[in-house]
Amino acid sequence: MQKPSIPKGTRDFGPAQVARRQHIFNVIRRTFESFGFAPLETPTLENLSVLTGKYGDEGDQLLFKVLNSGDFAKDVTGADLEIGSKALLPKVAEKGLRYDLTVPFARYVAMNRGTLTFPFKRYQMQPVWRADRPQRGRYREFYQCDADVVGTDSLLCEAEIVLMMAQVLNGLGLDDFTIKINHRGVLRNIYQALGGEGRESDLFVAIDKLDKIGRDGVTKELLERGFANATVETLFELLTVAGSYEEKLERLVAGFVTAGVEPDGPRPDGADEEAAASYRGLAELATVRDLLVASGFKQFDRLEFDPTLARGLSYYTGCIFEVKINNVLMGSVSGGGRYDNLTGSFGLPGVSGVGFSFGVDRLYDCLEALDLFTATAETPTRCLITHFDAASGRAALPLLAQLRAAGIPSELYPDVSKLQKQFKYADAKGIPLVIVLGPEELAAGLAKIKIMASGTERVLPLAEVVTALTAE
Amino acid sequence: MQKPSIPKGTRDFGPAQVARRQHIFNVIRRTFESFGFAPLETPTLENLSVLTGKYGDEGDQLLFKVLNSGDFAKDVTGADLEIGSKALLPKVAEKGLRYDLTVPFARYVAMNRGTLTFPFKRYQMQPVWRADRPQRGRYREFYQCDADVVGTDSLLCEAEIVLMMAQVLNGLGLDDFTIKINHRGVLRNIYQALGGEGRESDLFVAIDKLDKIGRDGVTKELLERGFANATVETLFELLTVAGSYEEKLERLVAGFVTAGVEPDGPRPDGADEEAAASYRGLAELATVRDLLVASGFKQFDRLEFDPTLARGLSYYTGCIFEVKINNVLMGSVSGGGRYDNLTGSFGLPGVSGVGFSFGVDRLYDCLEALDLFTATAETPTRCLITHFDAASGRAALPLLAQLRAAGIPSELYPDVSKLQKQFKYADAKGIPLVIVLGPEELAAGLAKIKIMASGTERVLPLAEVVTALTAE
Repeated sequence: MQKPSIPKGTRDFGPAQVARRQHIFNVIRRTFESFGFAPLETPTLENLSVLTGKYGDEGDQLLFKVLNSGDFAKDVTGADLEIGSKALLPKVAEKGLRYDLTVPFARYVAMNRGTLTFPFKRYQMQPVWRADRPQRGRYREFYQCDADVVGTDSLLCEAEIVLMMAQVLNGLGLDDFTIKINHRGVLRNIYQALGGEGRESDLFVAIDKLDKIGRDGVTKELLERGFANATVETLFELLTVAGSYEEKLERLVAGFVTAGVEPDGPRPDGADEEAAASYRGLAELATVRDLLVASGFKQFDRLEFDPTLARGLSYYTGCIFEVKINNVLMGSVSGGGRYDNLTGSFGLPGVSGVGFSFGVDRLYDCLEALDLFTATAETPTRCLITHFDAASGRAALPLLAQLRAAGIPSELYPDVSKLQKQFKYADAKGIPLVIVLGPEELAAGLAKIKIMASGTERVLPLAEVVTALTAE
Repeated sequence: MQKPSIPKGTRDFGPAQVARRQHIFNVIRRTFESFGFAPLETPTLENLSVLTGKYGDEGDQLLFKVLNSGDFAKDVTGADLEIGSKALLPKVAEKGLRYDLTVPFARYVAMNRGTLTFPFKRYQMQPVWRADRPQRGRYREFYQCDADVVGTDSLLCEAEIVLMMAQVLNGLGLDDFTIKINHRGVLRNIYQALGGEGRESDLFVAIDKLDKIGRDGVTKELLERGFANATVETLFELLTVAGSYEEKLERLVAGFVTAGVEPDGPRPDGADEEAAASYRGLAELATVRDLLVASGFKQFDRLEFDPTLARGLSYYTGCIFEVKINNVLMGSVSGGGRYDNLTGSFGLPGVSGVGFSFGVDRLYDCLEALDLFTATAETPTRCLITHFDAASGRAALPLLAQLRAAGIPSELYPDVSKLQKQFKYADAKGIPLVIVLGPEELAAGLAKIKIMASGTERVLPLAEVVTALTAE
């Protein structure tokens, strides 16, 4: 006899959890669809040739690989074994589990380029797998919900990402959030202000730690890496520019001019009307804000232009986003950005796109931490019919069928049991209504209905039960 | 540059396919929930100790196994390599992909026995993976939708399975179906009639082929396996008994009596009123029929008592079910049965239950073969706003926000493009309504709405557009 268990980092979701998770999925799906995104689903299994090399070395390590079926070891030699896992891997596994939704999406677009209509807007809500060390808020199997548009560089897409982020969080009741926005162009300009060249990644890695090690820590790291002291001073003046979204834009323009940063020119979409037009990143951030104003967006107190936002992924080229729920100890619940060449590695270069992702498991944990879930029953059943014996049980079947036909999920307690046990069942499952059909009730053509929450009972003619409960 | 592909036996589902599949899931989910089944989700990854040995030798072969993460080959020795895959497997893989929904369910019930309220009714709609040879209607990644009740032996559960099968198929418009029902007790009794002992499996394997090799083939096989000629004659008299559900029950009782089959006694739930009471299988099949009559079931022409139905799985002990869609070349789309000891191998013996499963991919293929899908758009978008330049595009944003707020999924074409291109986009995606917002319309405070299907156009004041489209 074995003691069953599940792999670490994975979870079972019982009825109440599934119902709560469905609520999150529904809010996200409705928002995505309201903005015209269409659903896509890709296989759990992808060829390792598609996955490998897309997530960096660390990502390749964290991919779950699937053993070839049949005699998987037939091509392995003693020499392979001496080299070890690295030599064995390509001989024993050619498939892996989906690691994110972005690479499969890029693969899908490249494979179906001939039949898709661009701009192509898709959303995808599926699990992904990473062989990460499990910890709070980090699982080995977890869900992502992505929405991407490819085939347009319109900044309306960026503005709509902010609208969708806010709509989902408001819809979930997570009102106290901060959407951080930045632009890779701004970071590039700051890098220019530093006079650096070829050491972009050193700088971004250091900036990314600002939250954790503070200004002193980042300064120390940059000095150690050979940046000049005055340069680092300039960096922090630019990075920590204060004020509203618009004030920061203005002050960064001034800062760039002072620091002698070369303009990288206006974009041909009206952004040249802006004061910041000569710096593409700032110009686009200004345009995104204008489009939000025109769209009636009201929550600018929750939208922060944060020049220190870097985001790890290398493929971003334009606006980048990250969302945190305030007052909950939890990483970001959403993030994304614009990329110019996501499908390039699949033979379809130059397709610009922008996308973002919600982490459903983190949203769930935030809702739980903030006690924002409403009470969720362990069953969809609204009504339990109790009975006294086989005869009264059988006599209840027409009523049961009528309740279901009226759209009221219902059960007849399946066994002949004490009434107390049947009520205990309803109570444990959170079934709100119980109908008692005893021999007396049946003889009189009546049914007793008990509302479990209040304990209220009412007796009704059998023929009126469905109508009464439909109105309940 | 790589040419991307997906593993054989797997599929991408584009927007229209996802929408059609969601329709199937919704019909099944609504039915399950209407009968009081609550959702459960289990991890994709299960420990191989949970999966192995549950599906027979062939099943073990078809399990997808996942390589341990990190240095997976570290414990593999040269000696292992000489023996081959069998010796390597336990050293390199300890997890596998879900093969069905029944074993994870049994594992879940055993793990959570202390907190679950019995009878426990759960449904589960998740993908499963099998390293089978892909062919028509058989994929390596496919969805199952299961509903099971454990902790009761009430035959109401069996009757409700028939009701749910019929409700789902009717709900999908697959009206021409046959639900076959049999009982392992009937097969046991027939076996007794043959005087056989210890060769049950020989018999069931042969019977299972009746569809394919016919009466002559089965006879030949049984004679070869040493069954007496007269015995096989009796077998076929019993197996091929003609008539309605009730007539077959009556004729089998008579046949059993003639053949001297020992009664296996009535069950204590009212079945003893039946003529067939002394044979448990026949008695239960009679009770299931009575419960269906009492529940108002009307489709008895689609319910066939088929004594030749055997079902492969060894764990069934009571009623068994199988559903075929008539006039479509396709295996069964649903099946199930009662088991008495599903959780036994996980340390929880004696929990009786009954369950069944829909194969979503086969239902999809049947609906497609019978042309029963309604036209499905490539997008949820109902309304596309077209425009002439950046200014008219921006002026459209308040209307766009209003349409979405009114629950009408809408898009503004994101780029400044020729009107023709924007209409082509709407047409390719199946967007039913297009709003034209040109400089003239905007100056006059008007919007032109085109209904794509009919080509009809109407011009409305901008302020009336949302109300008009809500009524559309």
